[in-house]
Amino acid sequence: MTAKRPDTPLLDTVDTPTDLRQLKPEQLRQLSDELRTEMIDAVGSTGGHLGSGLGVVELTVAIHYVFNTPEDRLIWDVGHQAYPHKIITGRRDRIRTLRQGGGLSGFTKRSESEYDPFGAAHSSTSISAGLGFAIANKLNDKPGKAIAVIGDGAMSAGMAYEAMNNAEQAGNRLIVILNDNDMSIAPPVGGLSAYLARMVSSSEYLGLRSLASKVARKLSRKVHHGLEKAEEYARGMVTGGTMFEELGFYYVGPIDGHNLDHLLPVLENVRDSEQGPVLIHVVTTKGKGYEPAENSADKYHGVPKFDVVTGEKAKSKAGPPAYQNVFGETLARLAETDKRICAITAAMPSGTGVDKFAKAHPERAFDVGIAEQHGVTFAAGLAAQGMRPFAAIYSTFLQRAYDQVVHDVAIQNLPVRFAIDRAGLVGADGATHAGSFDVTYLASLPNFVVMAAADEAELAHMTYTAAEYDEGPIAFRYPRGNGVGVEIPETLQKLEIGKGRIVRGDAEKGGKVAILSLGARLEEAKKAADQLEAKGLATTVADMRFAKPIDSELIRKLAATHDVLVTVEEAAIGGLGAHVLTMASDEGLTDGGLKIRTMRLPDVFIDHDSPEKQYDEARLNAPHIVDTVLSALRHNSAGVEEARA
Amino acid sequence: MTAKRPDTPLLDTVDTPTDLRQLKPEQLRQLSDELRTEMIDAVGSTGGHLGSGLGVVELTVAIHYVFNTPEDRLIWDVGHQAYPHKIITGRRDRIRTLRQGGGLSGFTKRSESEYDPFGAAHSSTSISAGLGFAIANKLNDKPGKAIAVIGDGAMSAGMAYEAMNNAEQAGNRLIVILNDNDMSIAPPVGGLSAYLARMVSSSEYLGLRSLASKVARKLSRKVHHGLEKAEEYARGMVTGGTMFEELGFYYVGPIDGHNLDHLLPVLENVRDSEQGPVLIHVVTTKGKGYEPAENSADKYHGVPKFDVVTGEKAKSKAGPPAYQNVFGETLARLAETDKRICAITAAMPSGTGVDKFAKAHPERAFDVGIAEQHGVTFAAGLAAQGMRPFAAIYSTFLQRAYDQVVHDVAIQNLPVRFAIDRAGLVGADGATHAGSFDVTYLASLPNFVVMAAADEAELAHMTYTAAEYDEGPIAFRYPRGNGVGVEIPETLQKLEIGKGRIVRGDAEKGGKVAILSLGARLEEAKKAADQLEAKGLATTVADMRFAKPIDSELIRKLAATHDVLVTVEEAAIGGLGAHVLTMASDEGLTDGGLKIRTMRLPDVFIDHDSPEKQYDEARLNAPHIVDTVLSALRHNSAGVEEARA
Repeated sequence: MTAKRPDTPLLDTVDTPTDLRQLKPEQLRQLSDELRTEMIDAVGSTGGHLGSGLGVVELTVAIHYVFNTPEDRLIWDVGHQAYPHKIITGRRDRIRTLRQGGGLSGFTKRSESEYDPFGAAHSSTSISAGLGFAIANKLNDKPGKAIAVIGDGAMSAGMAYEAMNNAEQAGNRLIVILNDNDMSIAPPVGGLSAYLARMVSSSEYLGLRSLASKVARKLSRKVHHGLEKAEEYARGMVTGGTMFEELGFYYVGPIDGHNLDHLLPVLENVRDSEQGPVLIHVVTTKGKGYEPAENSADKYHGVPKFDVVTGEKAKSKAGPPAYQNVFGETLARLAETDKRICAITAAMPSGTGVDKFAKAHPERAFDVGIAEQHGVTFAAGLAAQGMRPFAAIYSTFLQRAYDQVVHDVAIQNLPVRFAIDRAGLVGADGATHAGSFDVTYLASLPNFVVMAAADEAELAHMTYTAAEYDEGPIAFRYPRGNGVGVEIPETLQKLEIGKGRIVRGDAEKGGKVAILSLGARLEEAKKAADQLEAKGLATTVADMRFAKPIDSELIRKLAATHDVLVTVEEAAIGGLGAHVLTMASDEGLTDGGLKIRTMRLPDVFIDHDSPEKQYDEARLNAPHIVDTVLSALRHNSAGVEEARA
Repeated sequence: MTAKRPDTPLLDTVDTPTDLRQLKPEQLRQLSDELRTEMIDAVGSTGGHLGSGLGVVELTVAIHYVFNTPEDRLIWDVGHQAYPHKIITGRRDRIRTLRQGGGLSGFTKRSESEYDPFGAAHSSTSISAGLGFAIANKLNDKPGKAIAVIGDGAMSAGMAYEAMNNAEQAGNRLIVILNDNDMSIAPPVGGLSAYLARMVSSSEYLGLRSLASKVARKLSRKVHHGLEKAEEYARGMVTGGTMFEELGFYYVGPIDGHNLDHLLPVLENVRDSEQGPVLIHVVTTKGKGYEPAENSADKYHGVPKFDVVTGEKAKSKAGPPAYQNVFGETLARLAETDKRICAITAAMPSGTGVDKFAKAHPERAFDVGIAEQHGVTFAAGLAAQGMRPFAAIYSTFLQRAYDQVVHDVAIQNLPVRFAIDRAGLVGADGATHAGSFDVTYLASLPNFVVMAAADEAELAHMTYTAAEYDEGPIAFRYPRGNGVGVEIPETLQKLEIGKGRIVRGDAEKGGKVAILSLGARLEEAKKAADQLEAKGLATTVADMRFAKPIDSELIRKLAATHDVLVTVEEAAIGGLGAHVLTMASDEGLTDGGLKIRTMRLPDVFIDHDSPEKQYDEARLNAPHIVDTVLSALRHNSAGVEEARA
C-alpha cells in the first residue's frame, strides 16, 4: 500500500469513454501512462491480476477511443485483463475494492456496468459471445459491432476454434483482437502457439506511414467469396493464407500493441471496413511498464498486495501447505516407484501442483494448454493403454470436459484419476470459479468413485488410493488454499472404497445427533459437535470420505442409533445429501420418523468475498450446523416442539 | 430383407486382419467389393448407419492390410463408420445383430473386440484418444502406432482442434486420417469445411507412379523442428503450409479414398516414416457403391431396414408425430409473430426439428456444426442482445457444453432456452446416446428452470412457455421418438413456472398413494395407478412438469393426504426424486413417517435395445411402479408388514 496516490491529471478528466473521446490523439500516450500508474497503484493495494492488464493499457485506450462503446460491444476474454477497462468505464472510484467482498469483481460482469456486455472468467468464450451480439444486431438491422479481445493462450481452447469456424456470417460486425503476449498464466503450449511465434518472428512490423494505407488496401482488395471467384480465392488461401484466413477471417498483423500510432489507424481502418470478420494480431508484453512484473517469470499474473516501488509482494503467513502442493508432491513421490503414473494439467501447472510432479518426472507430465476436453480424453487413451493418468483440473474447469468424462471415461469404465482442486467456494475469484457442482455431476455417473478430502493427510491418502485403484474412474476433490495443519504420514493408507470413518463418538453406542461430513467442512462439523455436546446433545461425527459409493452400512448403523442425521458438504444439491436421502428412502430408513437434514451450497451463485464470509452466506459454518440440528429436534410432523436443548 | 445372402468367396476366407494380410494386394479390390455387398445386405436387414461405412470400405481394408492391428491402435471417430471394420475383425457372424438387443453395438466398443481400442459414439474424440495410446507406447518404449480416422464434419468440434494442437509430441506414432466426404449427417458448415473444399478443388490427385515416391520424399525432406532450423521452418510454414502443417502435422493429400492403388503406397510410406505426426487427407464418397445411397440427400446416413435391390426403406407405421417435429413446427409457428425467436442446432437440423424452423425462418436458424460449446455461448450472446434463442441440443450432446451452460448462461442468468431432445433411454443407439443426466446437471444450477414434457401437447406448451420466459435460463426435455397421440391445441398455454398438475385423483381429497411423474413416464404412471386402484389403493397421479423449481406447495399437499409418495422420472439420481427428498427433509415432511420412494434410472449404463426393454431393465415401467408402491406399503421401520394389497 502506498501513502500517496500517483498524480494523474489527464486521467482525472476521464470518467467514461465519452470523456476519453474528447481528447486529442496525441494525448492518449500520456493518458495510457497515467492509467498504467493508477492500475499498478490500485493492484498494489488490493492484490489481483496485474500482468494481463498492464499488457493491454494502450489497447484499452485505443479501442474505447476508436469504437463507440458501449453500443459497440467490447468483450474481454478472461475478464482479468479488464482492470484498465474498468478504470476508464466509470469504476475508477471503486478500483481499490477489486476482489474484496462487496467490491468490484476481478472479471468483467454484466451487473457491474453497461460497458461489460458479457461476463468472462473462464477463457475462450469471447468470440462466440461476440458473434451472438453481432448476429443479433444484424437481424435487427441495428448498428453496433462486437470486438472480442482474446489472448493467445485462450486460443488453444476448442471453443475459440469452434467460434472462428462460424465467424464468417458476422461479416464486418465482428472484430477479433488476438492479444499475443506469448504467455497466458504459464507459457502456452502446442502447435498454435508455435505457429504464432513463427508468424511474429518472420514478419516485420510495418512503419507508421505504410501501415494504415496497407491495411485499408488489404481489406478493400480482398476477393469476395463469390462463387465465380472461388478458384482464384482458393489458390490464394491455400498457398498464401494464414490459418485465420483459412477459417474465413481477414488477417491484419502482427502489430505492436503498445504503439498507439499504429493501433489507432489500424483500428479506424477496421472499424470503417466493409469487409469482415477481421482478426487483428496484436503483440504485447505482459506486465508492460512495470519492471518487477516484466522481469518476473509469470509477469505478475496474479499477485497479492505488493509495494509499488520495490515490487515486493506481501508475504503470506507461514502455515500448513497448500492442498495443491500436497497433491503434487504426493503424486511425484508415488511416481518414483510407479512408472505408470502420469499427470495432466490444462494450463494450470502451478495452480494444480502438477509443476511439482513435472519437476521430478518431466516425461510423464503433460500440460495440454487450455484444452480440458482434449486433456480428459487424452487421459482416457493413456488409461486404455495401461497407464495410471491423473487429470488434475479445477472443479469449475472440469465442467469444460463433462462429456468426455461421461462418454470417454465413465461409459468405458476407464481408470482415469481426477484430482479436483478448488472444490467448494474459492474466495476472491467468486462465483465463476467456485467448485460447486462436481459432486453432483460426477456422483450421478455409473462406474464412478467420488471422494472428498477432509484435510491434507486425507488428500495424501486419497491420492495414493486413486493411484492404486484400477477398476474404473475415480475422483477426489479438495479445497482451494492451505490445509488445516495435520501431519501427513510417511506411510499412506489405501482407503477402502465406499467406507467412511467415525472421527468423534461411537456409531454403535450412538447418540442424539450424527453429523455426516463430506470434505473440508469436517472442522466446522467438529466445532458444531462441541457446541451440541455442551448443550447436552450427544453427537457423533463421521467423515464419509465417499460421495459415491456411499457407505450404506455406516448410514444404516447411524440411523439406528441416532435421532437426527445431518449431512454437510461444500457442494450443490445432488451430492452426498441427495445420495444419503435416496438410499435412506429406498431402504425405508426414514419411514419410522428418523430425521435427516442435508446441508449444502444454497441455490444461488455466491459473489467474491473471503471464503469464511462466503461460507457464512452459504450457511455452512459451525453455527449453522448447530441451528439445523436444533431446528430438526424441535420439530415433529405435528409441529410440536418436542425437545428444547 | 433379402432371401439369399450375396456370394462373397474371398471375404469368406477373411475372419480377422491376420487372414486379410495373407492376401495379395491385387486381391483387395475384390475383397472390398465383397465387403461392400455384405455390408449393404446386412444393414438392409437390420437398419443402421449405412452411408458412412460404405464410404470407408477401401480405407478399412487398406489400413488393416498395411498396419499391424490390433497392436497398432485403429480408432474410428464416431464409430458408426466402423461396420466394415467389424465385419473383418471377427464379428461377421454377428453383423446382422447390429443395434439389436444383445447384438453388436452400432458404434465401436471396447468390450466387443480387441480391434476396438476406444469406443466412439460422440464425435471428435479420436485424435485425443490416439494421442493417449501413442504417448503411452512412447513412455513404455513399446511398438505400436495410433491411427485415428476422423470425418471432416467431426473436425468442426473444438476438441479435435485441441488434440491437433497437442499432437506434435507423438511424433510418428500418431497418424490422423481425415475422411473428407463433405458430409457428416447434414452438409458440414463453417470455415474449415470451405477450406477443405478449396484444398480439394485446387489440387490434382497425383498419378500412381509419382504418388508414393513423392510422399516418401516429402516426409523425409521435411526440416525437423530443431532450434537452429526454426527460422527456415517458420518461413516455409507461414508462406506455404496448410492449416494442419501450421499445427505441427505433416500433411499428405488429398488422396482418392476409393483407389487402393493410391491408398496402399501412401499408408505404407507413412507407416515407415521417421517423421510425424502425419495427417492424410483422404477424399471419399459417402454411400459409395450403392446407388440409392449415393443419390440420396443424406447418403443413407442412418436408415431403417430397406430392400437391397430397390433401396426402398421400410416405412414406419403412421402414428403420432415425432417429438422433434412437434418442437420444430411449434417454434416455427411462434416465430411468425415473435421476431426475436432464433434456433440453434449443432449439426443436427433434422434430428432436432430445427430444419422445420429453418425452412420457415432461414435467417434466424443457425447450424453451428458439431460445436455445442460455441453454440451455447453464441446463444448466450444472442440473449444478451435481446433475442430469444432456442438451443436445440440432444441431452447427451449438451454435456459437451456444460461449462458454457454454467458460466455463460446460468451465472449471468441469461434467458437462453434449451430444447433438450433424446431425454431418457433412446433405444438402438445405446448408452452413449442416452439422455440420462441432464435433469441432474441442470437442476443443480441456480437460476435455471427445468421442465420435462409428458406428451407432445405438453411439449408444445413448454415451447411456448420457454419463448415467453425472459427471466433467465429455461430448459425443457422430451424423449426420442413419437408422441403418445394426444391432440396439440391450437392455442398454447403459458405454464405457470414451478407448478405441476394433477392428472388423476384429487390432491385435496387424497388417497393411499401419490405418483409424482416427471416427463414421459406419465403413461406408465397412469397404467400403474389403474392397477393399484384395482387392488383397492386409491392413487393420485401428478405430472410435476418442473424439476426446478419443484412444486413445493403441491408436494406438501400430497404429503398431507397420502401415505406414500413415489417419484418417477427417466433420469439419473439427482433429478426430481432428489429434489423432492431434499425439500421434504428440509421441511421435515418425512419426520412423521410419510413414505417417499424415488424411481429413476439405475446406476448402470444400459446397452442398446428397444426402449421398452431398456425401461424394463431400468425398472421404470408400470409393473415396477406398482411393485415399488406395494413394497413401500408393506414395510415400516420395525420391519412389520403393515398392509397387504
